[in-house]
Amino acid sequence: MTEPLILRQDDTGVTTLTLNAPASLNALSDAMLDALSASFAALAQDSSSRVIVLRGAGRAFCAGHDLKEMQAARTAADKGAARFTDLFARCAAVMQAIPALPQPVIAQVHGIATAAGCQLAASCDLVTAASDARFGVNGVNIGLFCSTPMVALTRKVPPAIAFEMLTTGEFLSADRAREVGLVNRVAPPDSLDAVTQALARTLAGKLTAAVRIGKRAFYDQLGLPLDQAYARTGQVMAENLLWRDTEEGIAAFLAKRKPDWA
Amino acid sequence: MTEPLILRQDDTGVTTLTLNAPASLNALSDAMLDALSASFAALAQDSSSRVIVLRGAGRAFCAGHDLKEMQAARTAADKGAARFTDLFARCAAVMQAIPALPQPVIAQVHGIATAAGCQLAASCDLVTAASDARFGVNGVNIGLFCSTPMVALTRKVPPAIAFEMLTTGEFLSADRAREVGLVNRVAPPDSLDAVTQALARTLAGKLTAAVRIGKRAFYDQLGLPLDQAYARTGQVMAENLLWRDTEEGIAAFLAKRKPDWA
Amino acid sequence: MTEPLILRQDDTGVTTLTLNAPASLNALSDAMLDALSASFAALAQDSSSRVIVLRGAGRAFCAGHDLKEMQAARTAADKGAARFTDLFARCAAVMQAIPALPQPVIAQVHGIATAAGCQLAASCDLVTAASDARFGVNGVNIGLFCSTPMVALTRKVPPAIAFEMLTTGEFLSADRAREVGLVNRVAPPDSLDAVTQALARTLAGKLTAAVRIGKRAFYDQLGLPLDQAYARTGQVMAENLLWRDTEEGIAAFLAKRKPDWA
Repeated sequence: MTEPLILRQDDTGVTTLTLNAPASLNALSDAMLDALSASFAALAQDSSSRVIVLRGAGRAFCAGHDLKEMQAARTAADKGAARFTDLFARCAAVMQAIPALPQPVIAQVHGIATAAGCQLAASCDLVTAASDARFGVNGVNIGLFCSTPMVALTRKVPPAIAFEMLTTGEFLSADRAREVGLVNRVAPPDSLDAVTQALARTLAGKLTAAVRIGKRAFYDQLGLPLDQAYARTGQVMAENLLWRDTEEGIAAFLAKRKPDWA
Repeated sequence: MTEPLILRQDDTGVTTLTLNAPASLNALSDAMLDALSASFAALAQDSSSRVIVLRGAGRAFCAGHDLKEMQAARTAADKGAARFTDLFARCAAVMQAIPALPQPVIAQVHGIATAAGCQLAASCDLVTAASDARFGVNGVNIGLFCSTPMVALTRKVPPAIAFEMLTTGEFLSADRAREVGLVNRVAPPDSLDAVTQALARTLAGKLTAAVRIGKRAFYDQLGLPLDQAYARTGQVMAENLLWRDTEEGIAAFLAKRKPDWA
Repeated sequence: MTEPLILRQDDTGVTTLTLNAPASLNALSDAMLDALSASFAALAQDSSSRVIVLRGAGRAFCAGHDLKEMQAARTAADKGAARFTDLFARCAAVMQAIPALPQPVIAQVHGIATAAGCQLAASCDLVTAASDARFGVNGVNIGLFCSTPMVALTRKVPPAIAFEMLTTGEFLSADRAREVGLVNRVAPPDSLDAVTQALARTLAGKLTAAVRIGKRAFYDQLGLPLDQAYARTGQVMAENLLWRDTEEGIAAFLAKRKPDWA
């Protein structure tokens, strides 16, 4: 019997996924990428799950790709070329699945989030971090520039900050990560679980359908010219207003009572 | 006799517009949107106005759309669908009119700026805030995700900060809003007027034509590829240099005297 | 005999370029732009140079264009129009040459970096600053809006911060510049050289080829849609992995020893 690579717990709408390969600092092995892909595919269809927390078992959130597995691929006739191309395609698909999920996804980072582990955190909608957590895209230290983690990172933090991390290989503290927009909330290590679950519960308490169309609209409009962004989101707002639960939400607010969202 | 919905004061080039519906926390009713639209249309043609300050009367800057008016629209045969579509189109037009105005526009925020009120502040070129002011895109709390306010907000602050505000419905303090790039200056509540007017006066003291071509070029080049951005702004600089007042401005600087801009 | 406009020093892979026109605060005269262009063209082909530091001799990093030279151009029949158009085209080419260089470029800013001098700093990949250094795009003070410096600045800092600097003409302190993403490291004035050289040496100690493909990929993917950004960088990663030195770098890491990069 082997333990599953990802543990899933559900508590009244909050799904907590725990990367469960502590011996490898939750490395994104082929098997772990497959497990993440399967978990996300299942959650995309799961209307009972309203918010997802992604965390790691053991000493770290995630230390990136599985370097031993990558080295082993070099014995192939093409020295691993086909495997590497496939690996980054599958990894990119997993990362892009996160903003495409209907639920908000919160990365809960403790210990380190490095290389593709930092990419995984930066690909989530929100990030909480232990006060002693550290973020790095430090592949450059071993001669492997973090070119794909950079895609997620540069969409979260100012370019000069990302460039410094990528070329120095140095870590960003949790506090500095919050200052520059990568992290939303910093908590003492022993209350990180509680702070993250409280944040998840706050989101789970909202009208699920509103959060879902909101998340989709969020990524749809990013980077569009202003007029196109307004054209799309105006339609979303007008549709949102026609829902019975939204009519009730506004009525309740005007009457200073709680909405009856059954 | 009714008081006008927007009060306008002009003082040596600084136009101060005050949203004047304090009973509704300056809600963006149909009438208020029309008044804003008319004010901006007039100012777009008004060469005597060099800088615009937008503030609110009463306890808050602006609390967003007029929810009572929106609920009333539901009695129509289409349950309000046409009205809602029209409302967001008109609101988006007002918001987009601000960067299109030739004058810099400063939002002066006290109390709260919520939902479309936060959008209004984020649509302005600059924002000053009372130290106890709070910013929120909290429609999610009543089941109406702030999809259109999000357009303005995500063009000012890092995406993870915007996502957190949108999905938690929680407020951003003035200090944190300054840290993340939404607010330019924070002032004690009782000096907010003075600080904002001083900022406006600083801008009004510059060569008006330079500020106007600069503001236009600012929004024209945002988001363009680097070479296209330089091609456009290079032309703007070369044209700017040929003005008599700019020749005088440079001559005065080199002679360490004040420019003679009559 | 005249001293060269740009001094070049090379120390084990770190190239230090010093703008050497202290009497004009290292103004970007025609000759200085030509010298920068020639230096960058030479460095683009120089595989012995792994990192570039760009600094200024005298009291300041760089005070922008050479205003005396620009005023002198007005005596032409076209009042300088052709010269000005040419000047901004050449200046934009120099600025765009920096991200196109294979080496990371660090601007080391002391005193002031104003107008095109601020543009020069913002065009570099990384910026270090003396704690008393100040950044400004203050052409508006003399009637010449900093339309081209704005291109570099708005690609580094949040738009409201850039707009404030451009329209008020006021300075940003080194600390605030670090907070908003323009500056990477702030150092006491008398240790700025040492801090900058240490940063340069850190970068020079990495695998040069990895830093070079990383820098190119960095700018290639900025602003692309997520899927296109991943498609490009995935190929870069797969190629990077096939290098002998990267294989060695990973092997060394797994064996907890230093890589043998001869």
